[in-house]
Amino acid sequence: MPLVHITLLEGRTVEQKRKVAARITDVLVEDAGAKREAIVVAFHDTPRDSYASGGVLMCDKT
Amino acid sequence: MPLVHITLLEGRTVEQKRKVAARITDVLVEDAGAKREAIVVAFHDTPRDSYASGGVLMCDKT
Amino acid sequence: MPLVHITLLEGRTVEQKRKVAARITDVLVEDAGAKREAIVVAFHDTPRDSYASGGVLMCDKT
Amino acid sequence: MPLVHITLLEGRTVEQKRKVAARITDVLVEDAGAKREAIVVAFHDTPRDSYASGGVLMCDKT
Amino acid sequence: MPLVHITLLEGRTVEQKRKVAARITDVLVEDAGAKREAIVVAFHDTPRDSYASGGVLMCDKT
Amino acid sequence: MPLVHITLLEGRTVEQKRKVAARITDVLVEDAGAKREAIVVAFHDTPRDSYASGGVLMCDKT
Repeated sequence: MPLVHITLLEGRTVEQKRKVAARITDVLVEDAGAKREAIVVAFHDTPRDSYASGGVLMCDKT
Repeated sequence: MPLVHITLLEGRTVEQKRKVAARITDVLVEDAGAKREAIVVAFHDTPRDSYASGGVLMCDKT
Repeated sequence: MPLVHITLLEGRTVEQKRKVAARITDVLVEDAGAKREAIVVAFHDTPRDSYASGGVLMCDKT
Repeated sequence: MPLVHITLLEGRTVEQKRKVAARITDVLVEDAGAKREAIVVAFHDTPRDSYASGGVLMCDKT
Repeated sequence: MPLVHITLLEGRTVEQKRKVAARITDVLVEDAGAKREAIVVAFHDTPRDSYASGGVLMCDKT
Repeated sequence: MPLVHITLLEGRTVEQKRKVAARITDVLVEDAGAKREAIVVAFHDTPRDSYASGGVLMCDKT
């Protein structure tokens, strides 16, 4: 039943999300004993002006 | 004080969200003893290429 | 497929959560066209010293 | 290591987000003893038809 | 920079979480082009009376 | 209306949370134009065995 919410910078392709979702689901089945059909992965794309690390927006980093 | 975050596939109409927000708020008032004015419901619309169940993106399901 | 995360003050009983989960699921089936078996509701109980509104922790409100 | 997710109505400018991210990071360093470089702030902009308080969508409030 | 929040039923061991965190991080480096040191994985353990699918709490399923 | 969810390692005192909640609320009033009474801050304490950066659980870091 794990629910996986991934917040990441926008720009990843559908193919990247496809692989990530499939592999993370495999990991949770194999290593956490989760049932495959109960695993949900949601991607929350975030623009570079809406994500900061160390107090600095990504759009301001050089 | 409940904060309700709903992650769902994009495409719901405003009228659907209006009804869902009103009724979920009613439920939390009636069954959880929450104060109406303190209840917040936020919808996070998600594209079909950003949501997977069972390891498969919704856009890849037939 | 809606994923519902509810952050609320700790102290609700199992019976309250049982009713809330059942009724919110009904709402999403009836008004958002979601499939019942794909709806997940997770409650995140939060102590009164870990939840603030208006800048004041709940444990500090009289 | 705090992860800060802020769900807010869309419409804030980049300059507003820049200030908010910088100052929240300062707060967590000064008052929570967090390491600056490990603090992440993510803004989740939400349309007025996807955010309700008291059971009423923001777009329906006068 | 991906932030990964995993909501799952309580009961997983530290060894399970260790493997899941390591492998999910690998997936995001290899398939999403993320920088390893910027990836965070947080597990939110949830009791069986606080998690419902299909409108039924896990503690009520037989 | 901002909703602020802060995921952090457990161990902060009530006094630390009190200050952080008050100051973050001030920031959102002053720099994001939010109404004070509509701001909610929730802290999600996380054990060191449930939080990883760079693929390594905090309890495994030296």
